Amino acid sequence: MQRFVNHADFIVEDMMKGIEKARPELEILSENDHVMKLKAAPIASKVGLVSGGGSGHEPAFLGYVGHQMLDAVAVGEVFSSPPAQAFYDAFMSVDSGNGVACLFGNYAGDNMNVKMAVDMCLDEGVEVKYVVATDDVSSSPKETKEKRHGIAGGVFMWKVAGAKASQGATLDEVIRVAQKTVNQTRSICVGLSSCTIPAVGKPNFHIDEGKMEFGIGHHGEPGMHVEDLKSAKDIAKDMVKAVVDDLEVKADETLSVIVSGLGATPIMELYVLYNDIESELQARNINIDKVLVGNYVTSLDMNGAALTIMRMDDELHELLEVEADSMGLRV
Amino acid sequence: MQRFVNHADFIVEDMMKGIEKARPELEILSENDHVMKLKAAPIASKVGLVSGGGSGHEPAFLGYVGHQMLDAVAVGEVFSSPPAQAFYDAFMSVDSGNGVACLFGNYAGDNMNVKMAVDMCLDEGVEVKYVVATDDVSSSPKETKEKRHGIAGGVFMWKVAGAKASQGATLDEVIRVAQKTVNQTRSICVGLSSCTIPAVGKPNFHIDEGKMEFGIGHHGEPGMHVEDLKSAKDIAKDMVKAVVDDLEVKADETLSVIVSGLGATPIMELYVLYNDIESELQARNINIDKVLVGNYVTSLDMNGAALTIMRMDDELHELLEVEADSMGLRV
Repeated sequence: MQRFVNHADFIVEDMMKGIEKARPELEILSENDHVMKLKAAPIASKVGLVSGGGSGHEPAFLGYVGHQMLDAVAVGEVFSSPPAQAFYDAFMSVDSGNGVACLFGNYAGDNMNVKMAVDMCLDEGVEVKYVVATDDVSSSPKETKEKRHGIAGGVFMWKVAGAKASQGATLDEVIRVAQKTVNQTRSICVGLSSCTIPAVGKPNFHIDEGKMEFGIGHHGEPGMHVEDLKSAKDIAKDMVKAVVDDLEVKADETLSVIVSGLGATPIMELYVLYNDIESELQARNINIDKVLVGNYVTSLDMNGAALTIMRMDDELHELLEVEADSMGLRV
Repeated sequence: MQRFVNHADFIVEDMMKGIEKARPELEILSENDHVMKLKAAPIASKVGLVSGGGSGHEPAFLGYVGHQMLDAVAVGEVFSSPPAQAFYDAFMSVDSGNGVACLFGNYAGDNMNVKMAVDMCLDEGVEVKYVVATDDVSSSPKETKEKRHGIAGGVFMWKVAGAKASQGATLDEVIRVAQKTVNQTRSICVGLSSCTIPAVGKPNFHIDEGKMEFGIGHHGEPGMHVEDLKSAKDIAKDMVKAVVDDLEVKADETLSVIVSGLGATPIMELYVLYNDIESELQARNINIDKVLVGNYVTSLDMNGAALTIMRMDDELHELLEVEADSMGLRV
């Protein structure tokens, strides 16, 4: 395992210390070393925004704490949910009396721990509502789309909700726009090679040379199918079809797009892929609003890419345009 | 070779098309498809700023074209210099009558082609001066430091010169601050695994499992030595020593720092490494001003990291604080 690490069991703690030192606007919560928060939070008269999840997806989730973005995140070990206590501490640390919105991705552990933490807050008189991202079209059929996992679509959710909260919106208004991004967002991943969890020390799945896994999950969950590695153009075509068909996007509609690397994919190739994705959308007469290409939600050192689309309207367009400043996204 | 690519021989063109589509402020020069420029350039009354070099280092060099950053770049094939004609076309496309500064990294091909292009411009009455980055301490001994290669230190040079040019400085003033960043900047790389040039299809060097190459170059040039893979803390100690000793940084001086991944290194590990680098600098009573951690100058899919330090003074501090907006860096 070729890694920059001291002890694999403390890689998350060491990363968090590094982030706290590198980013003066952030701090590790003194009561819980698995919560990273904006120093400025709680912000008076603003709904608190929290996310959380397993580590290994950097810059998610920590990297989206920032000005007019998230106020805090609960940080789990690599690929595993933070405990309920971490979500609870994150919620309590950012509540200014206006309630807290928890915006996270749909995984069993996160779901369970968020719900426990929400109940714990209720006992303290702090209202927490939540929205669960379910953008990964490969993780469950359309008929059971509420069972789908959340992947890079969270970036749109955090940006939109962060902007709305910064405008003084109520908790219900923040929850409404966050849920709207979930309803309007779809993602699909393609994996070209595996990733290695530091504490395990060997790849947690395998993709043969010359093959690709279409629809792979962010932790290596099996995709829709394994097939021969295609050209970027053909991969782009399949990825666009998967998300556009599922969201039922029609000609003349407008999308915002994220192409996120999964960790080990050269930036050069993300733009090669985006070039073909854009051509494919153009061929369908679909308009493109915002475009993000880079490492937005990763899976350790997995080689692969995710395509995320969000159907736009005037409200979402305006909220994406609002100034924001975080490690993972600046507008 | 597990890659998102159509034809390896056209990967650079495809990437450039993708970037042009994703970034509305940029355009491929109509006369030369290996030049990317800011649409707004040439900017009246401003010195034009150009860089260039081989591809495969994304977001360098293209990603530093932007508002108050570079005005254009000449784009070479993977790991090879752009031809003189590309530098010439880049220079001519951004000159507003105030001259052009070419700020590039020290490699034989780039040196030769920049100098030819400078002469070609002179024939047209356009003045171009240049500064050559030589930050890689491993590539030549201190006695012959003018022979050293340029690596991630270019980011500081482009940022500082971009800010200075945006303030209406003359060509000589821009050249002065760019040269100052070179004089004050040192870098060192550590490689944990090789990279693969798409048109070649197999790794262009090899690092054994359990080993690391200290001082590796950005194209896999042999480093100072191969040794057993150390802990992040020990690697950080060696990296800090290499650059701090070479620059003769003393206690109570102030540095700005870049920790750049080389392409395939998880972001998590870059922060683990930064945590130890910061501790090492603290132990030497060295102050830290700006910190950048991420993929700033890469080498395709190489697993490794570079540490860059720049000795700060009031002028450099003020120029690093000036607003800037590019794919690779936003302030």
